[in-house]
Amino acid sequence: MNRDIILVDPLPRTLDLIMEPSVRARLEALGEVIVSEDRAMPAEEVERYLPDTVLIFGQTDMPRERLDRAPRLKAIINVESNFLANIDYQACVERGIWVITPASAFASPVAEAALAMALDLARGITAADRDFRLGVERYGLEGNAETFRFAGAPVGIIGFGDLGHAFRELIRPFKNRVRVFDPWLPKEIIEGQDCEPATLEEVLRESQVVLVFASVTSENEGFIGKREFAMMKPGAAFLLMSRAAVVDFPAMIEAAQSGHIKVATDVFPEEPVAADDPVRQASGILLSAHRTGGTRDAFYALGSMAVADAELIMKGLPPRLCRRADPATASRLRSKPVTVS
Amino acid sequence: MNRDIILVDPLPRTLDLIMEPSVRARLEALGEVIVSEDRAMPAEEVERYLPDTVLIFGQTDMPRERLDRAPRLKAIINVESNFLANIDYQACVERGIWVITPASAFASPVAEAALAMALDLARGITAADRDFRLGVERYGLEGNAETFRFAGAPVGIIGFGDLGHAFRELIRPFKNRVRVFDPWLPKEIIEGQDCEPATLEEVLRESQVVLVFASVTSENEGFIGKREFAMMKPGAAFLLMSRAAVVDFPAMIEAAQSGHIKVATDVFPEEPVAADDPVRQASGILLSAHRTGGTRDAFYALGSMAVADAELIMKGLPPRLCRRADPATASRLRSKPVTVS
Amino acid sequence: MNRDIILVDPLPRTLDLIMEPSVRARLEALGEVIVSEDRAMPAEEVERYLPDTVLIFGQTDMPRERLDRAPRLKAIINVESNFLANIDYQACVERGIWVITPASAFASPVAEAALAMALDLARGITAADRDFRLGVERYGLEGNAETFRFAGAPVGIIGFGDLGHAFRELIRPFKNRVRVFDPWLPKEIIEGQDCEPATLEEVLRESQVVLVFASVTSENEGFIGKREFAMMKPGAAFLLMSRAAVVDFPAMIEAAQSGHIKVATDVFPEEPVAADDPVRQASGILLSAHRTGGTRDAFYALGSMAVADAELIMKGLPPRLCRRADPATASRLRSKPVTVS
Amino acid sequence: MNRDIILVDPLPRTLDLIMEPSVRARLEALGEVIVSEDRAMPAEEVERYLPDTVLIFGQTDMPRERLDRAPRLKAIINVESNFLANIDYQACVERGIWVITPASAFASPVAEAALAMALDLARGITAADRDFRLGVERYGLEGNAETFRFAGAPVGIIGFGDLGHAFRELIRPFKNRVRVFDPWLPKEIIEGQDCEPATLEEVLRESQVVLVFASVTSENEGFIGKREFAMMKPGAAFLLMSRAAVVDFPAMIEAAQSGHIKVATDVFPEEPVAADDPVRQASGILLSAHRTGGTRDAFYALGSMAVADAELIMKGLPPRLCRRADPATASRLRSKPVTVS
Repeated sequence: MNRDIILVDPLPRTLDLIMEPSVRARLEALGEVIVSEDRAMPAEEVERYLPDTVLIFGQTDMPRERLDRAPRLKAIINVESNFLANIDYQACVERGIWVITPASAFASPVAEAALAMALDLARGITAADRDFRLGVERYGLEGNAETFRFAGAPVGIIGFGDLGHAFRELIRPFKNRVRVFDPWLPKEIIEGQDCEPATLEEVLRESQVVLVFASVTSENEGFIGKREFAMMKPGAAFLLMSRAAVVDFPAMIEAAQSGHIKVATDVFPEEPVAADDPVRQASGILLSAHRTGGTRDAFYALGSMAVADAELIMKGLPPRLCRRADPATASRLRSKPVTVS
Repeated sequence: MNRDIILVDPLPRTLDLIMEPSVRARLEALGEVIVSEDRAMPAEEVERYLPDTVLIFGQTDMPRERLDRAPRLKAIINVESNFLANIDYQACVERGIWVITPASAFASPVAEAALAMALDLARGITAADRDFRLGVERYGLEGNAETFRFAGAPVGIIGFGDLGHAFRELIRPFKNRVRVFDPWLPKEIIEGQDCEPATLEEVLRESQVVLVFASVTSENEGFIGKREFAMMKPGAAFLLMSRAAVVDFPAMIEAAQSGHIKVATDVFPEEPVAADDPVRQASGILLSAHRTGGTRDAFYALGSMAVADAELIMKGLPPRLCRRADPATASRLRSKPVTVS
Repeated sequence: MNRDIILVDPLPRTLDLIMEPSVRARLEALGEVIVSEDRAMPAEEVERYLPDTVLIFGQTDMPRERLDRAPRLKAIINVESNFLANIDYQACVERGIWVITPASAFASPVAEAALAMALDLARGITAADRDFRLGVERYGLEGNAETFRFAGAPVGIIGFGDLGHAFRELIRPFKNRVRVFDPWLPKEIIEGQDCEPATLEEVLRESQVVLVFASVTSENEGFIGKREFAMMKPGAAFLLMSRAAVVDFPAMIEAAQSGHIKVATDVFPEEPVAADDPVRQASGILLSAHRTGGTRDAFYALGSMAVADAELIMKGLPPRLCRRADPATASRLRSKPVTVS
Repeated sequence: MNRDIILVDPLPRTLDLIMEPSVRARLEALGEVIVSEDRAMPAEEVERYLPDTVLIFGQTDMPRERLDRAPRLKAIINVESNFLANIDYQACVERGIWVITPASAFASPVAEAALAMALDLARGITAADRDFRLGVERYGLEGNAETFRFAGAPVGIIGFGDLGHAFRELIRPFKNRVRVFDPWLPKEIIEGQDCEPATLEEVLRESQVVLVFASVTSENEGFIGKREFAMMKPGAAFLLMSRAAVVDFPAMIEAAQSGHIKVATDVFPEEPVAADDPVRQASGILLSAHRTGGTRDAFYALGSMAVADAELIMKGLPPRLCRRADPATASRLRSKPVTVS
């Protein structure tokens, strides 16, 4: 009789990072779990189990030849959250093998932090605390000289995937007019969330708060640069929440330091940031060390979403929580593998 | 024929502070406006106009004798936002003179800032920026070691007036369980906002985030002290948004410095805070110089609400936007006059 | 020692109608309860208790002379839900006696029924059931020839008190543009609920669904008549939810029968409606026998709101759930006493 | 040079039914449109165009052999809204051909009508109108003897796809506790909409209002029968909004006629219903002639969603608005083709 093998090859994650004990128990109920956590699963181990493998949790290389040797494979579940080039997506599609990722597990914590940072820039929270500690605080109306109300301010969203959607839900009580630039989406999706489709230029020119949630693709690297920052309203806020490569980073720092706009960023061109990187002392920027998504609950959600969809797939049903790799889209994405968990 | 006199005696406010030109024009359409902005209106000036005065905008002393000399007076509209003891409230009630204040103009900006500061404590926004500038930032999950998600965290609200209500609306998308302690309110009001009536102790013991929006009364001065802070969960957040006198301030600082809880405060026992006050260097506290309410838009809202209600009153209708002074309640309030605008 | 007497004189209500046992127990904890349910409390009984009466629940006549003989009276709580002319409101104000009513208890069931009836007219629910029973039903698109989608349809509200507010909350998911005509309200109240202040004519001309929630006053009797119905869009829906006297009733029936608009009404000029009243056979009208507000839960809410506010008043606090009679407003209202419960 | 052919074979729809002129213009911008509306496109016509066909709008038979002859085909867009067995889904997947349907265009009107009908049963709208016309109307509380408030009533949803989701959004202001039975979904999806996963029995036993939105599959035909209706609370409401085959229809009618529950149905085992079908005279049932989804706007939405996704697909992007056929799921569905539009 066949064994149902589940390969777990989650580097840079570990099983304990992404699964609470109850979720791990659900995983183990689906088959025999073979784990390689301290290093990528060695080729010989992968090969040994392929004939009986039904599920792969992780980022194992899966070229067509390996798929040929895994006739019972039903799904590859990427738990790093970015689709990489080490899988033959077309071959998976042909064989009816799901390739999915629970990447949206990070949407809720990132959106929450994006609102925290947007409110911070609008109302001057971190700046006021710093002034207070320096003994130069200002009270009442004077203390609001450089602030604006987030409520009612025009908001612009660049990239309207899971993150953008989650953020949009969080700001509903503030009743902002929200413009969205996302060239991959039909207007129906944007309007369905009570937002307005807009060009990049409209978003930049008209918004008091601009948030970038866009992934990097082969087409949008550095697409927000000096010219684009110059379009923004003086005193407006710009928040970079997704990937550093979508902006011209030095131009962004310059726009903040000059006082033209206020900036917050969770991502940097190189991470960790060098000890002597001048960004550390830049004025007008709120700094966050790529930490808005990586909360304890988000990693557990990654694991529970992965297992819940694996349960559906093993019952012959389609996955419902994870995002599917569409071959066409996957090939346009340019994410670097995550190196810190 | 009678003139309709409107006395404007708004110290510490000024007309320009609280009224945009279009609103001022609406005010002037209601009668002949007599203004004293640089000082409280002198007694002889008040007396001269009393017989024809229909409206007072400001904090003019109005004992019974003056009310006797103002037979046409319809309303006293306090624009400082706290009812003071210089009015004979009972005599106003008997004469059908409205005594009202547009204090709720500050609810929206304070609630917004309260959410900004609550998210800051939860997600470590200001702390992470400070660490980054000091070169000790931590990335990813490590950078979240001392944080918690605001979404879903149990929230406790102490004092559920305009501020509490406004805050409750803002956090709806976060789906928190919200407990409210407010001994002046029937449970129907609290439950009507999808919150749970609770004792002070329940609020302190069960909440991950506690917000104080309560006014000072003769009964609640310093009612949150060492014993109460000790009840809070380790790592929970405490935000003081209303009046310093409702807490034992040194005990609050101690609770923060010890690392037991995280604290944010917008108010201080003495303002401005002394240059050498140790609170400036305290750890675990987010500092704000009594600036969460005093935004540009809030002062304008104060004025427009006051004028809109004056328009209704001049038509013989009840005011709809301002809060009325109830003699019983007014006598329990212990606010100090505002000395900075 | 003084007894605290509570007079309960609730005709046409009864105590059992409006108070569940637990609420009645709370009432009894406030004082000694004297009840007259089968008839209005006889004058001699009222007079006997006046010196010790602290609260009145009901519609007892209270002219100034009686108030003079009730020195301890704190509140008169109207449980019929309309303020009548049998109280000296000014004298109550002068003495600090609250005159209040829990009328808003009916807002929630009326708003719910208003939505039911608005959706019925829009989607043709009752009409389609009738056609089916007559064997002339039409399927699919044909069956929708005379319908419209409520979602997104422009809505007009006439009278924006408790009922209007409750209705506005219920329709939020339908994302309608909502215009409001209410000459007693400042625009800030209307805009604060994401509605647009409008003239009566704008509401009638621009809306696909018009709802009347306005009370009758000395100024608005029959203010919606033939000319106003003619302004409405062909096929639009008109719902009369408050008082028959605000419309020209025959003109409304004519507008429905002619096919110009669709009508629903919960109220009639004379109730009960005569057996041979032609409205019973009128086409284009959805009929409801003044039953949208009088649900079991609404009567209990009436009682619990009344008692909850009585509890606050006995503690020296202002009421929070009931509406206060403003002398000026009360004198403009023209409600007839309710004759059926 | 190649022509881009778009086959439009929409029976039982027509292009005019589903596309406004502006949408049709967008369609024509995508290629050369070949239409067969009065009959299914003849085989010879299909064959002639296959080599240059890039898109098919409609229900054309597409076995593997035809797919082999359509090397440039990118998508088959079903505009009837049910996936049928006349396509080789596996072959489409292998070739990267999208097979999609804009079926969710009907979710919004069906959900709106479901709420209309649920409110009707709860508040007795149609029944009260009928009583009024018969001269037996009852006023006030008496008129509510057999009604219940929808607000706050426990609601049960059976089948939580597009329809169930749309309905759930509409009832948010009513603050119901909502239980969901859907064996195809992980609990995360259900809980994410603030509902509770439940068994079928729990849904039936605990709900005051039960709505069936489930599609027919090979596994659930007639799964709600006599035993299940008996589980329901006396006086509860049951609404059948999706397909007649999921219930034992005679048992449903019997449950209504006996007075045990109230029923509303939009679907029938045979449509049109026979002239002498006794359901026409059944008591306790609200009847709707399969007309809740087929509104004018829904058909246009069907067309605009189809074209919007076609535009994305022609740009090499994945569709975003239509639902994809998953071969496994498609094979379980048992819908009959629609015969009336």
